[in-house]
Amino acid sequence: MNLNYAKRMDGIKASEIRELLKLTQRPEVISFAGGLPAPELFPVEAVKDISTEVLDEQGTKALQYGPTEGYEPLREKIANRMNKFGVDVEAKNILVTSGSQQGLDFTGKIFLNKDDVVICESPSYLGALNAFKAYQPKFVEIPTDNDGMRMDELEKVLENTDNVKVIYVIPDFQNPSGRTWSIERRKKLVELANKYNLPIVEDNPYGELRFEGEMPPAIKHFDTEGRVIFLGTFSKTFCPGLRLGWTCADGDVLNKYILVKQGADLQASTISQMQVDKFLEKYDLDEHIEKIKEVYKKRRDLMLKTMKEEFPECVEFTHPEGGLFTWAILPEHINTRDLAKKALEKNVAFVPGGSFFPNGGNENTMRLNYSNMDEERIVIGVKRLAESIKEML
Amino acid sequence: MNLNYAKRMDGIKASEIRELLKLTQRPEVISFAGGLPAPELFPVEAVKDISTEVLDEQGTKALQYGPTEGYEPLREKIANRMNKFGVDVEAKNILVTSGSQQGLDFTGKIFLNKDDVVICESPSYLGALNAFKAYQPKFVEIPTDNDGMRMDELEKVLENTDNVKVIYVIPDFQNPSGRTWSIERRKKLVELANKYNLPIVEDNPYGELRFEGEMPPAIKHFDTEGRVIFLGTFSKTFCPGLRLGWTCADGDVLNKYILVKQGADLQASTISQMQVDKFLEKYDLDEHIEKIKEVYKKRRDLMLKTMKEEFPECVEFTHPEGGLFTWAILPEHINTRDLAKKALEKNVAFVPGGSFFPNGGNENTMRLNYSNMDEERIVIGVKRLAESIKEML
Repeated sequence: MNLNYAKRMDGIKASEIRELLKLTQRPEVISFAGGLPAPELFPVEAVKDISTEVLDEQGTKALQYGPTEGYEPLREKIANRMNKFGVDVEAKNILVTSGSQQGLDFTGKIFLNKDDVVICESPSYLGALNAFKAYQPKFVEIPTDNDGMRMDELEKVLENTDNVKVIYVIPDFQNPSGRTWSIERRKKLVELANKYNLPIVEDNPYGELRFEGEMPPAIKHFDTEGRVIFLGTFSKTFCPGLRLGWTCADGDVLNKYILVKQGADLQASTISQMQVDKFLEKYDLDEHIEKIKEVYKKRRDLMLKTMKEEFPECVEFTHPEGGLFTWAILPEHINTRDLAKKALEKNVAFVPGGSFFPNGGNENTMRLNYSNMDEERIVIGVKRLAESIKEML
Repeated sequence: MNLNYAKRMDGIKASEIRELLKLTQRPEVISFAGGLPAPELFPVEAVKDISTEVLDEQGTKALQYGPTEGYEPLREKIANRMNKFGVDVEAKNILVTSGSQQGLDFTGKIFLNKDDVVICESPSYLGALNAFKAYQPKFVEIPTDNDGMRMDELEKVLENTDNVKVIYVIPDFQNPSGRTWSIERRKKLVELANKYNLPIVEDNPYGELRFEGEMPPAIKHFDTEGRVIFLGTFSKTFCPGLRLGWTCADGDVLNKYILVKQGADLQASTISQMQVDKFLEKYDLDEHIEKIKEVYKKRRDLMLKTMKEEFPECVEFTHPEGGLFTWAILPEHINTRDLAKKALEKNVAFVPGGSFFPNGGNENTMRLNYSNMDEERIVIGVKRLAESIKEML
């Protein structure tokens, strides 16, 4: 039997990361592949406590349908937390979503006709590219450097490209590169978006996980016209298993996201929203984030140190000031998809970098995650990876 | 500022029900509008118990990312529960979704190009129509009677219509009509779908809430070629606040739903899935469903009895053997959108039936829910509604 699927399905493939993650379930595998938080840091006892309290206090409400926009007290608290990013908003600017991934899918649905252009960083987050692909856009990649997307290159593209509909960026500890945009670039991006009347989708799952240096204001901080759509999540600062994120936007733009949420799944889980709300009320999320940062910083330091010691000199890699990933560039003749197979024989996993370039190429790159493995496994894993690389030189 | 949205957004409007539900939040309103379960029946203590147990036993796993397909033990239990519907499947046939609503959105994404045809019952579930509208289809409504969709009419349409892509039906205690398909019609539908190589989407949120009579096998029971996609949910039998439903399908068809889930929101909540799994293990969901049915049956009986006593004779309505809704047809000159305004002045709410017809018309119909109000309020509400109707005669 061969059913007649929609044309868009031709472009939708399994995420290489999610498929790889299945292989890495085996306990002997040292995985630098996923973007998984360290589970030993999850506040399990606190979640038990707040679950009980929510059910004791408002059990029937927690188990009932709720509004599409989200649980009002949580929307308020999220709006307050946006201050950390230099963004001054109210509850009415917040839609609670099933992780920030859902905000990416909605972005595609709201803005993209077939063959419309999405502008993204080169490289960019694979999960976003896959979400957008369901709406059959074209991708134009803009070169990046250590200060983020190159604005001169962006300007050229905007001048010369029809049907640009969305600019998608991850300015803080970018996935996959680990790099952070300068303030100058952030301002310039808003200026260009204003000039060309484009929405900016600012994906910011990692910004609060800064180990060193000053946190720059979000791009949305510089938004004077309500065209920046900020996507946030509790997956990296609290836990991903509850699947809660948010879209922060203005007026009619947020209304579009709410409308689309209604058709997509009616609303985020009422009980999960009330749990996170209770956690924010009763516990100190920022204190919890401090603990996460302490552990991740050590892991980053150790991973970079071991890479420096063990990797051949021809391998370059980024120095992320926070977040979950570093990004390595190998000599051009090394295809990291082959390397990944070799490394998996030694029970080490990572994501080949090619997947992060929507238009292909760059097969000599790779993304390495340091948040999910303990220090011992980081050292062993990087050493084994170094061996595999040397075998391919 | 006017951003340039995708064309599909022109057709996406706020669900009349969700908007109406906001008005009905006021405690003085007697609402027959939503499809809300009775909150007093939610097993709050059991949920407290299982939450604690899940977090005690597997806390870090419950708060971590999990596979897109769903939590394996829950997939197995859902597959087993499909036996109730006469459907013999395994865990590999199940995708856990955020309510069955998400399966509707995915159906649109997977099958519908712009201007493709969705065949549906007349009337049909508003939330499904809204979900599909994001993919810009045309709707062809097939007349229905007390045995379900009329197969002679369907056959005529299939013979004469190009680009039919999906047949969408709610065969058990249909939303909004409350009617249930005969076994003959179920078999015939599969036969026609086989002949025209079409997928059938069988939406079944209410089937387990049968107050009287025999439960007919699901349409999927008669599926010989893997073309029936069955959408189920725990929202009506357990609680909607957890947002858990499932898609049951075969081979490549289910794979498409999994792929789309990946881009849409990665996965359903890990902890909620483990909670429901634990509930199914430790408690007796069927026993719980018996309690729900007992209460809803009384409410249905009372609503129908009061309607019979109080409504003018010119109003016809259905006698649902289960589920949440009855459906009333008023004299043609009464527009139920006007009636709804009048009734709301008396603090009574319902959903005007016109919204359930994708191609318009039938403004003299209305959907009445009996699951969410206690018996006293049902009697008062129906009496007030009868007064409003009489005022319009």
